[in-house]
Amino acid sequence: MSKLPLQLSVAEITHLVDQHFPQVQEGNGQVTVERSDGQLTVVRMAYDDRLIRPGGTVSGPAMFKLADFGVYAAILGRLGEAGLQAVTTNMTMNFLSRPQPAALLANVRILKLGRRLAVCEVYLYSEGSPDMVAHATSTYAIPPEGMIR
Amino acid sequence: MSKLPLQLSVAEITHLVDQHFPQVQEGNGQVTVERSDGQLTVVRMAYDDRLIRPGGTVSGPAMFKLADFGVYAAILGRLGEAGLQAVTTNMTMNFLSRPQPAALLANVRILKLGRRLAVCEVYLYSEGSPDMVAHATSTYAIPPEGMIR
Amino acid sequence: MSKLPLQLSVAEITHLVDQHFPQVQEGNGQVTVERSDGQLTVVRMAYDDRLIRPGGTVSGPAMFKLADFGVYAAILGRLGEAGLQAVTTNMTMNFLSRPQPAALLANVRILKLGRRLAVCEVYLYSEGSPDMVAHATSTYAIPPEGMIR
Amino acid sequence: MSKLPLQLSVAEITHLVDQHFPQVQEGNGQVTVERSDGQLTVVRMAYDDRLIRPGGTVSGPAMFKLADFGVYAAILGRLGEAGLQAVTTNMTMNFLSRPQPAALLANVRILKLGRRLAVCEVYLYSEGSPDMVAHATSTYAIPPEGMIR
Repeated sequence: MSKLPLQLSVAEITHLVDQHFPQVQEGNGQVTVERSDGQLTVVRMAYDDRLIRPGGTVSGPAMFKLADFGVYAAILGRLGEAGLQAVTTNMTMNFLSRPQPAALLANVRILKLGRRLAVCEVYLYSEGSPDMVAHATSTYAIPPEGMIR
Repeated sequence: MSKLPLQLSVAEITHLVDQHFPQVQEGNGQVTVERSDGQLTVVRMAYDDRLIRPGGTVSGPAMFKLADFGVYAAILGRLGEAGLQAVTTNMTMNFLSRPQPAALLANVRILKLGRRLAVCEVYLYSEGSPDMVAHATSTYAIPPEGMIR
Repeated sequence: MSKLPLQLSVAEITHLVDQHFPQVQEGNGQVTVERSDGQLTVVRMAYDDRLIRPGGTVSGPAMFKLADFGVYAAILGRLGEAGLQAVTTNMTMNFLSRPQPAALLANVRILKLGRRLAVCEVYLYSEGSPDMVAHATSTYAIPPEGMIR
Repeated sequence: MSKLPLQLSVAEITHLVDQHFPQVQEGNGQVTVERSDGQLTVVRMAYDDRLIRPGGTVSGPAMFKLADFGVYAAILGRLGEAGLQAVTTNMTMNFLSRPQPAALLANVRILKLGRRLAVCEVYLYSEGSPDMVAHATSTYAIPPEGMIR
């Protein structure tokens, strides 16, 4: 879609997150970037008892957090530091089935990477289960270069 | 996802639409079912001058119509006559790039087919162009058997 | 929200639409701007037999068209000619009840009018009926001044 | 819209939540029901340093959590115990402006309360500030009576 040659490695994305957005690791649900290339970014939320809801399922806000983190990681992968100030403007989630009491995985694809907007879709799975537990689409606004957040 | 063995052929879906929903062909933008199997349903809207907007692009309502028709066709393919009374409850569309002045194609995948709700996603393309012009997710409510619409 | 003093009259908005977007009147469902002020923009789609679907209800694409037109009219009301190039980037519709076979009204409120994005919500009613038939939220991208669509 | 006479008091809703959904208070951001009547349900998330993100703003997952809790509380208010098994099927959030480092308030209105689906909209504010920080629409599925979650 885009012709940008840039694609950060997982280590480079992780480094940017650690430096500029360490708060994402506060609270429950440690998140990590597992993969990121031109096609697919995969992020993971470790299993944590405190995320579990009645019936053994992972909470909605935890799924939101992972989807949102995955989109941010995918954008950083393509834009590098220029993507740090990108902010969520829309998130639409469809909840399909109850997650297992397990780690959560999010597969993120960039549908459009424009100069001002990025649109991504996210498939959420319980680790080790084939059925999608939630689907999300999300739009991020990308501030003009040089603009301070 | 679902264990239903049913999958109507393109001819069978088309027959149901012709019998029960001929109004879909009124107005501009003739629609046809091109393919439908367990993985993917493809529908097409023929090029029509009257759908074109300034700049040579296809109108938003035409894209909505095709996406909605594609989801309905995918559900008919899996449920047969039992799906005729299904109704749209939600449609979320992200418009990514301007469609070409060409036929529109919609690739529909069923993400969940429950007893009461079906959730689908739709990729829209201009025929002959590789870039997605719009992405949609849609939820349909499936009436209980025997319920009259 | 915004501090812009501008607010076009209904006649001024209608004039801009007639000049720059006459195609909106093609096909079924004549649309008009009924009211527009700092709080609320109201648009109306005249009753048209050809918009009617089985059961006497107005079609989904017609509802989409009216909601989208209403948001465009609301943005023109605030931005004047500078809003002509605004384009829909997201439309999320929830369908609540079947419209009557009557004219449709859309009440549009601007939730945010930024320099680059406008977010609106839309309540759709059948004329003469109190129940909301659909709810929509929509985002428009506002091109930078001087940019040609 | 609905003809149900039931409307629980704030104390009754709070009691149901405490009994059946105490986990909502785990982690950061204590939530309370402030008001609930036929028109409007208001819920509040107390200020908590750990919810704050760079720039002094409240995190997206916290906003999601409050919106989702507010919709659940509104449904409990109308359905009582019969609503306990209701589950989120869709949440669409538009983020409009950065929340202040303050408590968050969510004003929830039920747009439709059907036998199988409830559709709500949510306005989110920072306590003490007039501008909406986010808008959400959400759909819940209401299980048939007697169905075990």
